[in-house]
Amino acid sequence: MKGRAQAREEDALRRRPALAVTVGDPCGVGPEIVLKALAVDLTSAAARLVAIGDEANLRQTARQLKLRWPFGAVVRELPEDPRWDKPLLLDLGDVDPALLPGQISGPAGRAAADAIEKSVELCMAGRLDGVVTAPIHKEALSLAGFSDPGHTEMLARLTRTPRVAMLFWTEDFSVALLSTHMSLSQAIRKVRRRAVLGQLVFVEREWRRLTGQRPRIVVAGLNPHSSEGGRFGLEEAQHLAPAIEAARAKGLSVDGPAPPDSVFQMARDGRYDLVLALYHDQGTIPVKFGYGRRAVNVTLGLPFVRTSVDHGTAMDIAGKGVASEDSLVQAILLGARLIQSRWASGKRGAARRDR
Amino acid sequence: MKGRAQAREEDALRRRPALAVTVGDPCGVGPEIVLKALAVDLTSAAARLVAIGDEANLRQTARQLKLRWPFGAVVRELPEDPRWDKPLLLDLGDVDPALLPGQISGPAGRAAADAIEKSVELCMAGRLDGVVTAPIHKEALSLAGFSDPGHTEMLARLTRTPRVAMLFWTEDFSVALLSTHMSLSQAIRKVRRRAVLGQLVFVEREWRRLTGQRPRIVVAGLNPHSSEGGRFGLEEAQHLAPAIEAARAKGLSVDGPAPPDSVFQMARDGRYDLVLALYHDQGTIPVKFGYGRRAVNVTLGLPFVRTSVDHGTAMDIAGKGVASEDSLVQAILLGARLIQSRWASGKRGAARRDR
Repeated sequence: MKGRAQAREEDALRRRPALAVTVGDPCGVGPEIVLKALAVDLTSAAARLVAIGDEANLRQTARQLKLRWPFGAVVRELPEDPRWDKPLLLDLGDVDPALLPGQISGPAGRAAADAIEKSVELCMAGRLDGVVTAPIHKEALSLAGFSDPGHTEMLARLTRTPRVAMLFWTEDFSVALLSTHMSLSQAIRKVRRRAVLGQLVFVEREWRRLTGQRPRIVVAGLNPHSSEGGRFGLEEAQHLAPAIEAARAKGLSVDGPAPPDSVFQMARDGRYDLVLALYHDQGTIPVKFGYGRRAVNVTLGLPFVRTSVDHGTAMDIAGKGVASEDSLVQAILLGARLIQSRWASGKRGAARRDR
Repeated sequence: MKGRAQAREEDALRRRPALAVTVGDPCGVGPEIVLKALAVDLTSAAARLVAIGDEANLRQTARQLKLRWPFGAVVRELPEDPRWDKPLLLDLGDVDPALLPGQISGPAGRAAADAIEKSVELCMAGRLDGVVTAPIHKEALSLAGFSDPGHTEMLARLTRTPRVAMLFWTEDFSVALLSTHMSLSQAIRKVRRRAVLGQLVFVEREWRRLTGQRPRIVVAGLNPHSSEGGRFGLEEAQHLAPAIEAARAKGLSVDGPAPPDSVFQMARDGRYDLVLALYHDQGTIPVKFGYGRRAVNVTLGLPFVRTSVDHGTAMDIAGKGVASEDSLVQAILLGARLIQSRWASGKRGAARRDR
């Protein structure tokens, strides 16, 4: 006989995740790609979507670019009844209609931040399951008085998350980065035993939390051919091999260091779920070259699922109707999928605990 | 009315290039892939091929792996009459039959070097037009008393070539490297205005010599997002931009620095012929991830065309019959094509001079 808790869990498993889609900078391509992506049947079939932005801004974008209005309703607050079908627009009413596409301004940065703050508030209150973000502009954000260098840092601050990491998800494998936006010289200095071990442990735990699976991880080398036994650099022997050994001693499934120019092929061939890349471009070059807009940016460490488009505000083409919604569609689909697998693994965990 | 010189040139244009294929280390996969690649109709249709190696070693390989014997004749000297059709085997008779697949030894290194030396001798005497090399083993070469770290350095020494550069050729674009086998830290220190300018001028000249065309070049940035105007590193502003400007002042077509994780897509989209990558893996990651065995290694700067397989001796699978000849086939086809285009551009040059 089914218990009430179990029935509730099964119900949760069947229902579609509730996902915020923040519109991003109102003067970038965000409004356009949100309208386009939410009009795609696949996205609203995968999740109950709530765009968070400004109604007037979106109506103007739809009118000027002749885009279909994808929303079932425009609301000022999320409805108490969570059973909505067509995407909702949560209107923040915060964009001055005089703002033009392509402009970088403080008010635009402020509006972009409003949507992010609102999405965090709703996720933290348990009313939404995750956030998918359209692009913001760092300079506009800074003009609005925010010192966060980007989305990820802002989300970490708002949720008081001490540690986050950037992950790129492709249909074949994922790539986590040891470091992100710093010079290559600085990034090399981050390749230290302790930092690599810490990142392996963190990424492994967050991957399990996200997917319910133990990842098979491989660490990329730093130097050409992983230094050929020390001929071209010492980091592999001094820092990477010991970090990998220590991670294995903790029970993690980690191989490497593997030659940087073959490690991604090894993962693509199905041998690994996750590559730890040691600097930004080591990870982003193969992901962007091989997968383009099909790659999705995922933030590890936040209390809720967060995925993101893999491009910027593209101010140069904003308002022209030529922006592609592909990356946002992929980010929504992956966000929904990750929430489902988190639910499923929570259920499996609960089932194990019940025994 | 056709002059005699013109008729001769047209004849040369029509004839197939004469290409050496060195067998490489006799204990690696070289003998196997040479037998397989020369049995492919495409390769002997593209060029008059001369494998340079040891007959007994190749016969043994063919017998053990049940491979077709692809040679029309086995010779001890290249025939005076250059009109041969099926591939020749130039037998150096220098491999001890007791050597086994997978063994790393001085005698094997010596045999590999013999073939390279012979191929250089024949090219320098004008009897062959280029060399395609199967893989050698650095350690075996060193056991044989050679201090050259690899093929390229040996070829440079034998031909007294002061400057060479490694180029990866794909069907979409090519990538030249600023530096090759050194640690990433060292490679970063090579990113200097003078060195970048020197490499741009060298690579552009050699590309023209090879293809008869002026390349459209783009230089990759060093830091994430090309440093976003100096936020993540200074090399773009201090060294790359000035080098590019100086190259343009010399009449070269050079753009950049372009973000490392989008520059290869720009080239693939047809905007550039050639990407200058600033360190080994920046170039090899996208080439190997995107093109695998279809990428061919070309040495710029030598007096003759030289292409190479894009893999090593693979001692672990030597003698097992599972090695793929794809990379060698591509290297032969590209070698033949580059010689043809060099002839064609020589002819165009001569025609211009005649006017």
